[in-house]
Amino acid sequence: MTRILSGRLIALPAPPDGGRIDSGWLYRQLRAAILAGQLAPGSRLPSTRAFAREHATSRAVAEAAYARLESEGLVRRRHGSGSHVADALPVRVRVGRRQRPPPGELIGARARAWLAEPGCVEPDRLMPFNAGQPDPQEFPWATWERCWLAGNREARLMATHATDPRGVPELRAAIADHLIRFRGLNCGAERVVVFNSSQTALLVIALLLVAPGQCVAMEDPGYPGARAAFAIAGADVRPVAVDQSGLRVQDLDQDGNDVRLVYVTPSHQYPTGVALDEARRKALLEWGERDGRWIVEDDYDGDFRYSGASMLAMQGRTRHQRTLYVGTFSKAMFPSLRLAYAVLPEPLIAPATMLRAQIDGFSPAGNQLAMARFMADGAFDAHLRRTREAYRRRRVLLRAALQPIVSLGWALGPADAGLHQTVVEPIPGAARQAVALAPRHDLALARVGQYAHGAWNGPDALFLRYGALRDEQIVDGAARLCRMLAKRAP
Amino acid sequence: MTRILSGRLIALPAPPDGGRIDSGWLYRQLRAAILAGQLAPGSRLPSTRAFAREHATSRAVAEAAYARLESEGLVRRRHGSGSHVADALPVRVRVGRRQRPPPGELIGARARAWLAEPGCVEPDRLMPFNAGQPDPQEFPWATWERCWLAGNREARLMATHATDPRGVPELRAAIADHLIRFRGLNCGAERVVVFNSSQTALLVIALLLVAPGQCVAMEDPGYPGARAAFAIAGADVRPVAVDQSGLRVQDLDQDGNDVRLVYVTPSHQYPTGVALDEARRKALLEWGERDGRWIVEDDYDGDFRYSGASMLAMQGRTRHQRTLYVGTFSKAMFPSLRLAYAVLPEPLIAPATMLRAQIDGFSPAGNQLAMARFMADGAFDAHLRRTREAYRRRRVLLRAALQPIVSLGWALGPADAGLHQTVVEPIPGAARQAVALAPRHDLALARVGQYAHGAWNGPDALFLRYGALRDEQIVDGAARLCRMLAKRAP
Repeated sequence: MTRILSGRLIALPAPPDGGRIDSGWLYRQLRAAILAGQLAPGSRLPSTRAFAREHATSRAVAEAAYARLESEGLVRRRHGSGSHVADALPVRVRVGRRQRPPPGELIGARARAWLAEPGCVEPDRLMPFNAGQPDPQEFPWATWERCWLAGNREARLMATHATDPRGVPELRAAIADHLIRFRGLNCGAERVVVFNSSQTALLVIALLLVAPGQCVAMEDPGYPGARAAFAIAGADVRPVAVDQSGLRVQDLDQDGNDVRLVYVTPSHQYPTGVALDEARRKALLEWGERDGRWIVEDDYDGDFRYSGASMLAMQGRTRHQRTLYVGTFSKAMFPSLRLAYAVLPEPLIAPATMLRAQIDGFSPAGNQLAMARFMADGAFDAHLRRTREAYRRRRVLLRAALQPIVSLGWALGPADAGLHQTVVEPIPGAARQAVALAPRHDLALARVGQYAHGAWNGPDALFLRYGALRDEQIVDGAARLCRMLAKRAP
Repeated sequence: MTRILSGRLIALPAPPDGGRIDSGWLYRQLRAAILAGQLAPGSRLPSTRAFAREHATSRAVAEAAYARLESEGLVRRRHGSGSHVADALPVRVRVGRRQRPPPGELIGARARAWLAEPGCVEPDRLMPFNAGQPDPQEFPWATWERCWLAGNREARLMATHATDPRGVPELRAAIADHLIRFRGLNCGAERVVVFNSSQTALLVIALLLVAPGQCVAMEDPGYPGARAAFAIAGADVRPVAVDQSGLRVQDLDQDGNDVRLVYVTPSHQYPTGVALDEARRKALLEWGERDGRWIVEDDYDGDFRYSGASMLAMQGRTRHQRTLYVGTFSKAMFPSLRLAYAVLPEPLIAPATMLRAQIDGFSPAGNQLAMARFMADGAFDAHLRRTREAYRRRRVLLRAALQPIVSLGWALGPADAGLHQTVVEPIPGAARQAVALAPRHDLALARVGQYAHGAWNGPDALFLRYGALRDEQIVDGAARLCRMLAKRAP
């Protein structure tokens, strides 16, 4: 085993079976050394040429391993300055399903039940196809820094003191303007409330409108974050099936449910990707007109539609003020910005704001002022135009690369929105089998059925998230996926 | 009435009773014009000399009105460039007690009860003595900007993607280091969880540890934010009296209460300012040793102690892992940073983090990285040294300026910590009367009894918050207060 010498040599154990170094094995060794801190952040790696010479392997093997580390953000490579370990490593988020259950004697039954909700587990590393995030490479960091500095300097008092829990006025106005122009909302700035996340917005809405034991209906399969929020509020969550036309609105009052609130993702159902069709929209809005009923419209990726007439938000089609709209900057900007918003009926603004203040006070003014400036300067519109095109292109690439399995009977889901693509299985059980096999092929797969409220018996589909994947990752990942599925084909 | 002409003339109604312009009246007119937008942000005001000439008054009157507007952040004045309306106005927070009650038919009984909790109402404007915030003038903005840029550039990946809901590792480590050095905590970085606010930390703790209907004890009078958090969790909140030695620990199990969790502010009781004495600390730690009991120690202004041996946190004195510690950067930095932290027993880290993720995901990575850098560079320690001295000096000034009412029988509360000062009334009802009279003397007073859980019959005290007030505001405010109380003295 050679010693670790940053810049020239890298310590490596003997390759398995005393054989040759291959790129997958090399990648795993380097990754482990980086994550364990044996290769320090910022340290220089040997050139692929030097590496190949030192370890008696080919330059292509080193090149492939380095490229994969780079694609994961663990290594940065620049022409002329060589390869370095990244200065800061992506954080591995280790909460969620994989945590061991909390000790029973410490925590009450109520909290234990909440913690059993799957919630939203963030991936350890981005790979095909767990990357529903936007791509940081597409983000205009220099412009953002300028907006952050300008916004914060201009309004130092506001950035310092406690700020209106509804949000900074400039940001509320910019959000209203954006939503009116792009999503057809019926609102003014005074109806916008800024939150740290749509998760908090959903929790506040649930705590405000739903009494313990009251019925909440949501799509099945559906968004786990919403389910967690309703569970914390003590709601009796009733799953309602989704078909090709979206939520089966006709089933809302099945079994004599007295549903008080419906949670729905009409533009791009999470996770199936279908849109709620016109007849269902009409039916849902009619359903909501009865007193004491609420519709919560989560437009989580409404900024990304690629084809067809833009499907506007339901909220804008009604004036009866029973539809609450929730949106986020997590996809249009980046998740760690932590800014989201709700457009609420006028009578709910004050109580929602009060409850929100009791839960988390208000959102950091600095980020709000930066975002307001970013929007006012036109940078947000420009960024959306650019990224909408980038993600559309990636989707086209992905769908083309998936053609080999279409001939095996897999069917591509809707093509017109968002940062994920579904692929419906040809025979029952195929998606589940693919998910189980994926790690061996260095794929991170999920399936639509995992988002079901209970055991899933409907037709299942793969749920491929590609937002933060680059072209070559998409093409490589799809090729691996196709090879894997071809092997298992009946 | 003259017309509004920015830079030269300002429209003013006729002075009351056709008389002379005085500075209080002038201040109110200008303030109203600024807040109504009649004087646009950034617009230039006439010089005090030009103003006096135009309105046939003295320059001193204009000077006093301008100075007061400046002290409130509504006007900025620079030698050589004159006076301008501020570019951005402090936001007026209008939620809290003063809101009209939410419409009963929309919102369930549970939410209505929560909304009836007083919560924390932020002042419309900072004045004597509602300013418990830190002073933004003391904050090193240039250093902060540098840290924000450096922290964000260095760790772009982390600042972009979803981040560990426990907090960014560098920040958790820096917080642990700070708490060990300055507050004597018994912890490592792995026991620190970063939250947006101590409010959210308290809510997560309450939801996790308290089942609906279980008893939670808290100080009476006590912090309304904590009470709101426990109410949302469905706890049965039992007030326990506070005396000269802090929380009456001996009363915890009065009336056969089966208290599961005690909320306490041992270093500087909120609002009375007393410290929990040694005997009570011992008794409380003993109380907490029985299985299934928890102590939540809120060290909300632990960074500001001025005299005597530093009173270290209770958490550091016990290894039985039943004491949860909550702290915030709202006072040591600024409230709108929205960063706070809890130090939790090891078995609670995972469930608290999961629940936290279901409530608000995680804190914005950009601010966390900036804060971590600010701490690592020593800027935080330096800032604390400087501000501890500044607030100590202001407290000395305030206590000196209050001497006239000490001779009337009012008694100054403890002098050794925080950004507020209590003054105990000489006879029952005096504090309540003073609060009622205050607006007429342009004072914003609160009293300790307002923080009681029910009707308050104990000795009451004024609750003077001076953190963000400048020397002249403290001296002027105290002089007005003394004059007011002298007039009403028996």
